[in-house]
Amino acid sequence: MLGTQSQEAAAERLMPDLANLPHTPAGSAKVSAERALALWQEIGGDPALREILLDQAPQELSLYQGNIENAIGLLRLPIGLAGPLRVNGLSAKGDYFIPLATTEAALVASYHRGCRVITAAGGCSAMVLYESLSRAPAFVFETAGDACRFIVWALAQFEDFQKTAATTTSHGRLVDVGCTVEGNHVYLNFEFTTGDASGQNMVTLATQAVCDDILARTPVTPLRYYVESNLSGDKKASARAFISARGKKVTAEVKLSAELIKKHLQTTPEAMADYWRMSAIGGVLSGTIGIQGHFANGLAALYLATGQDAACVAESATGVTRFEVTPDGGLYASVTLPGIMVGTVGGGTGLPTQRACLELMGLAGSGNARALAEVCAGLLLGGELSIIAAISAGHFSRAHRKLARTRKTP
Amino acid sequence: MLGTQSQEAAAERLMPDLANLPHTPAGSAKVSAERALALWQEIGGDPALREILLDQAPQELSLYQGNIENAIGLLRLPIGLAGPLRVNGLSAKGDYFIPLATTEAALVASYHRGCRVITAAGGCSAMVLYESLSRAPAFVFETAGDACRFIVWALAQFEDFQKTAATTTSHGRLVDVGCTVEGNHVYLNFEFTTGDASGQNMVTLATQAVCDDILARTPVTPLRYYVESNLSGDKKASARAFISARGKKVTAEVKLSAELIKKHLQTTPEAMADYWRMSAIGGVLSGTIGIQGHFANGLAALYLATGQDAACVAESATGVTRFEVTPDGGLYASVTLPGIMVGTVGGGTGLPTQRACLELMGLAGSGNARALAEVCAGLLLGGELSIIAAISAGHFSRAHRKLARTRKTP
Amino acid sequence: MLGTQSQEAAAERLMPDLANLPHTPAGSAKVSAERALALWQEIGGDPALREILLDQAPQELSLYQGNIENAIGLLRLPIGLAGPLRVNGLSAKGDYFIPLATTEAALVASYHRGCRVITAAGGCSAMVLYESLSRAPAFVFETAGDACRFIVWALAQFEDFQKTAATTTSHGRLVDVGCTVEGNHVYLNFEFTTGDASGQNMVTLATQAVCDDILARTPVTPLRYYVESNLSGDKKASARAFISARGKKVTAEVKLSAELIKKHLQTTPEAMADYWRMSAIGGVLSGTIGIQGHFANGLAALYLATGQDAACVAESATGVTRFEVTPDGGLYASVTLPGIMVGTVGGGTGLPTQRACLELMGLAGSGNARALAEVCAGLLLGGELSIIAAISAGHFSRAHRKLARTRKTP
Amino acid sequence: MLGTQSQEAAAERLMPDLANLPHTPAGSAKVSAERALALWQEIGGDPALREILLDQAPQELSLYQGNIENAIGLLRLPIGLAGPLRVNGLSAKGDYFIPLATTEAALVASYHRGCRVITAAGGCSAMVLYESLSRAPAFVFETAGDACRFIVWALAQFEDFQKTAATTTSHGRLVDVGCTVEGNHVYLNFEFTTGDASGQNMVTLATQAVCDDILARTPVTPLRYYVESNLSGDKKASARAFISARGKKVTAEVKLSAELIKKHLQTTPEAMADYWRMSAIGGVLSGTIGIQGHFANGLAALYLATGQDAACVAESATGVTRFEVTPDGGLYASVTLPGIMVGTVGGGTGLPTQRACLELMGLAGSGNARALAEVCAGLLLGGELSIIAAISAGHFSRAHRKLARTRKTP
Repeated sequence: MLGTQSQEAAAERLMPDLANLPHTPAGSAKVSAERALALWQEIGGDPALREILLDQAPQELSLYQGNIENAIGLLRLPIGLAGPLRVNGLSAKGDYFIPLATTEAALVASYHRGCRVITAAGGCSAMVLYESLSRAPAFVFETAGDACRFIVWALAQFEDFQKTAATTTSHGRLVDVGCTVEGNHVYLNFEFTTGDASGQNMVTLATQAVCDDILARTPVTPLRYYVESNLSGDKKASARAFISARGKKVTAEVKLSAELIKKHLQTTPEAMADYWRMSAIGGVLSGTIGIQGHFANGLAALYLATGQDAACVAESATGVTRFEVTPDGGLYASVTLPGIMVGTVGGGTGLPTQRACLELMGLAGSGNARALAEVCAGLLLGGELSIIAAISAGHFSRAHRKLARTRKTP
Repeated sequence: MLGTQSQEAAAERLMPDLANLPHTPAGSAKVSAERALALWQEIGGDPALREILLDQAPQELSLYQGNIENAIGLLRLPIGLAGPLRVNGLSAKGDYFIPLATTEAALVASYHRGCRVITAAGGCSAMVLYESLSRAPAFVFETAGDACRFIVWALAQFEDFQKTAATTTSHGRLVDVGCTVEGNHVYLNFEFTTGDASGQNMVTLATQAVCDDILARTPVTPLRYYVESNLSGDKKASARAFISARGKKVTAEVKLSAELIKKHLQTTPEAMADYWRMSAIGGVLSGTIGIQGHFANGLAALYLATGQDAACVAESATGVTRFEVTPDGGLYASVTLPGIMVGTVGGGTGLPTQRACLELMGLAGSGNARALAEVCAGLLLGGELSIIAAISAGHFSRAHRKLARTRKTP
Repeated sequence: MLGTQSQEAAAERLMPDLANLPHTPAGSAKVSAERALALWQEIGGDPALREILLDQAPQELSLYQGNIENAIGLLRLPIGLAGPLRVNGLSAKGDYFIPLATTEAALVASYHRGCRVITAAGGCSAMVLYESLSRAPAFVFETAGDACRFIVWALAQFEDFQKTAATTTSHGRLVDVGCTVEGNHVYLNFEFTTGDASGQNMVTLATQAVCDDILARTPVTPLRYYVESNLSGDKKASARAFISARGKKVTAEVKLSAELIKKHLQTTPEAMADYWRMSAIGGVLSGTIGIQGHFANGLAALYLATGQDAACVAESATGVTRFEVTPDGGLYASVTLPGIMVGTVGGGTGLPTQRACLELMGLAGSGNARALAEVCAGLLLGGELSIIAAISAGHFSRAHRKLARTRKTP
Repeated sequence: MLGTQSQEAAAERLMPDLANLPHTPAGSAKVSAERALALWQEIGGDPALREILLDQAPQELSLYQGNIENAIGLLRLPIGLAGPLRVNGLSAKGDYFIPLATTEAALVASYHRGCRVITAAGGCSAMVLYESLSRAPAFVFETAGDACRFIVWALAQFEDFQKTAATTTSHGRLVDVGCTVEGNHVYLNFEFTTGDASGQNMVTLATQAVCDDILARTPVTPLRYYVESNLSGDKKASARAFISARGKKVTAEVKLSAELIKKHLQTTPEAMADYWRMSAIGGVLSGTIGIQGHFANGLAALYLATGQDAACVAESATGVTRFEVTPDGGLYASVTLPGIMVGTVGGGTGLPTQRACLELMGLAGSGNARALAEVCAGLLLGGELSIIAAISAGHFSRAHRKLARTRKTP
């Protein structure tokens, strides 16, 4: 923390152009070592910190153009490997070593263990069940009657909306539109497929174009409108996801014999199913959306490693884990996630280390987004198996103690 | 993706010790360049990828010991600066340049804009309202009657539980215990303060010790027990957080004049309050927990930059944003988050770049966790102001188009 | 409470046929004074109680045949009138005195006051936005792959399902089918229109027929199936209702001038909008579904008076109340309920007093269900206006004290 | 529906005093046959309807004084008997025949069957786990800082608040107070015990008195305050109930042998546990609060028969049903409800038929509220057993067809 006055002054000098611009300071979007150096000087930043954050590879910085603003350097996170995970999916077929970026002790070890037992069982099946990404613009009318008249008109324009959306993107496609009326408010819900991109910006731009078209042609003019109404569930867990999906809805399942569970997980199918049932109710009692253990751990680590939007962990980390003892005394385990937000093109997927991680899995670039979603589901299935085994066997706290304590506290 | 057979074989050779260990492979916890190189060779990884992920600074890898397992290299994320943000908090006092790690275009620019308008208004106030971290072990009894007898006993042991917990940690302290009965199941909810650490492992170990104590002394023996029941809300959004807090409950608020809003945000208090109201209902209709816009964006970027657990975005990104037009025609804006999980010691906070980011804010090390929570709340307040202004003024999609398109798609 | 042994024996003698019947004792379905008298004797019931419950109009009892089993008498609830409420709806057009059955002091008075101010403003508008009733059978398969193959087949059978459903009812019509996969589980969601009946039994029977058809023809045989999976939201509040509707989705709105609010409600639009905003957040913080004040009060009283299923209050009493100050200084108020369960034929609507209440509103029999739903929405709008006015003006507790205390406690 | 003009005029003549009164028309609180007759004449009501609603026992009407306003007559609902239900509770001990008021075919039969199987197994255990009723007043301050200063003061006044509350009631007692800050808003949560009354009015009046005391003495004056903020969960399902309870938190459990299940329910423990698991997830996927089948059915019917507030079904019908196969091949079944709102004094419990129903169970008057709550839990346990057995055995739709079709449609 620097002195107040000098910082303020520095900021004014550095980014005088920002104050008068709507929403985003285009001037600071330039990403380069020179620009970063200038920024460090303007704010009077400690050179010792700059050395850590910037000076190791300053020329790499320009590769991040378009993914960051006001860039001052690079953060480094360790990557661990989990796997191999065998996935018998619709799109993902084979064994995958999965790179996970995290700073939390025991996370990679736990997912690794889960992946190993799945693979030992011959792999998990996995399938993308549905995919669509929504944007939900909203329109305010004088009365609910106007709102209804608008909807009657709007729902008849679907094909025109599709054409308009198509002018903004060749990868995305408007596939459905829903509507919700609340008093004199109308929420439209546009659903798009987005190819192999995660697609959040794509659907925003397409929805803006459709809104412009609506405004130009509607027989019932709204008092005001917004391109996004907060109904889409963007960046937050919502019950809506279970009904309408955001991103890719995906499920994975595996059957494990009692022998395999004993060998790899040191517990029994019954113990795991017993704990699953209690933990499911524990989740319900705490008022969560869905019932699961720690989807967020694996999701965050995989999203980071592969250049996905880390903030989407908030919306993606919901779903259902289910464990059952099978008639033959084994364990049936499945995970279902209503909204994984993954892409293999666009966003952060083309950045150096992120692309390398995708390539390590053989999933970089076009044609691989569904496979990545299936691998992701398989990974999370492994994580649920591992944590439920550990807690039901009483090993949970022991593992954390062991691994975290190898750290030398500075 | 490599050939299935060779991978399997490689894994067996590489980590033969893993299969027989409970939960975590201690053997792979060793983090070093040599170990990583061996791992690359074992899996037959492409040297070109290894060069990107490992070879730029192989000797740094050993610094991550205790934060990762099966380490193969380092991920790099760009860091942008937002601010300065003036915070008039209980603990945070001054102007802060805030490092944000993200790969999403427009994110830093949007938070930067929000921080700037807050600072121009003289800063936000912010305060940590409550802090505690819970672990919720569960106990299964033969009957609900046994469950109740157990609770009567357990609630009388609070001081003994405190002493037991204190044997495992000098930083954490057991401050409260609650109980929930569901049929013959008992959930205890232990609440701890954790000093300046985020504290998840700390409370797990302390809870394990208390459970061991319970098992040794209880007059009513449970059929089985678990150190965590999934009731604590760990790693997932829950309604429970609003009542009992996880981590730090924090609020931030600011008043902005109409002039300031016009100058910095190109809109009006009325337009922002109108959109806030609609977006609040949009969130409710989608079945979210709390009502807010995009807490997850700022949280994820700040958690990453400062070495917090990124998976905790799933649980922390809930809360309430509230905008009102004030009697004098300005805007009152506040954010309240029931469970920010931040620490300034432990976890990933001591890693090279993460610690540098904390130091850039003057918030590294002991004594700073509350201030970091208050800065975090102020940052998220800025993000809500910026996005609500952008959407209410119709600038949202424009900004995203402009910034994301400066990227050169590979 | 009688002696244990004699009761047991009595029950065995009385209903020996019940024990061996699945689910429902057809033998006790006979409703008559004679049967009730016999029942009183069998259980050794106090004649003084029988006199109160049965003897005032014993011959009426047989009119309840098909609405009750093991009948022993009649309960009496007082009915109060609220209104007139002017509704300018799509189906309801005119002024309605609304019968409300309740035992709670101040309830009728509060709704009455709300109806009066709406009428003084020229009435509310109201409209049924959507109607459908769902049943959600579920199917268990060996694998998720089988589950998906089943769905591909099932979704192609929609027209056949419609025909099969039509064989069971001439009033109901299958209008849509959705599906949800969770691991190897499939949930189908059948949506029906049900004419002027509430229709719960109608859709159960139709769904059973479709399930029978599925079982006979499916190329992928499920391990087991259930006619209802608890996904439909039957008899419980669910977030799902906002997306898919149960029963009738309906909205009502009104604009009130500041003068009218002052005269009738002794407060101001600003005070009401301020309280609305706080109470909306209060609801969110408590983890409710939707945001509203006391829909349940008016719903329960109207459902009872008009022969609806009182248990449906649990699912219907969710939705959104919204109050805003209008640009001209008045108040805009609306309520939107995603799932009102009302009918004007079937269920309890044909019983003597219930039918009389429907006739009092001019809404008995076929052709009136939508109008009843609109009147219901208008009534609840009145209730929200009255309670929010009372609380914002500080009159809430005063009213309850005054009215409840006129009672002579026995 | 009458002509608009004449109704308006009639209402003006009839209740001229209402328009100018806050919230409740004291003038119409008089309940008598004469008053009701006058009301029928004023609105021009059809004498044939009046005969049905009023003329059978006009003199009884005055007994409802203080429970209704604008009274015009009496509604009649049939009562059926379920049971005997053996309850081995903390307060309820013995066999109970349970009166249920409903107009829905199959409801009594289903609960009857469930009660019978419980009794055949020796009865269920049941216990009230906790009791308290909350009111949550709210206070608005200029800043969050003021809000915090207020809380520091308020939490130190607990004993004074207790004394103030005690001046308004001898039955209720303030037992706890909690607080929630959201920006510059403060929510206090007062928890009361209410003796044998349900107690909603009692806690409102006590809270009003405490608020008056706060306003008189607080060192930090709020801008405004409200006696209820909608945080208490009054009249709506909320996740909060699981943490803080509203009314009585109660659980009931039973173990059934496979033989008993076969004899009484025609299915198996495994089939019931399988369906339970699927239906639990079905509930989760639909976004309900808690996981249960049809608590609302039994609750509504028992609340009505015993004079409880029927609108409270909306808040009470949440909780957890859990079924497990026991190691010896039987079934463990439990229900837990976080907030049953039942009393045996006050409200509608003293009305003629309602009191007779309470007396039939031996639970009228003081000292019986906890026992009533335990009987209620046992009843709902029976209902869950019956419906889950019926659906898992494929009998559900058959039962409804059989019983509802004995009705002669008018």
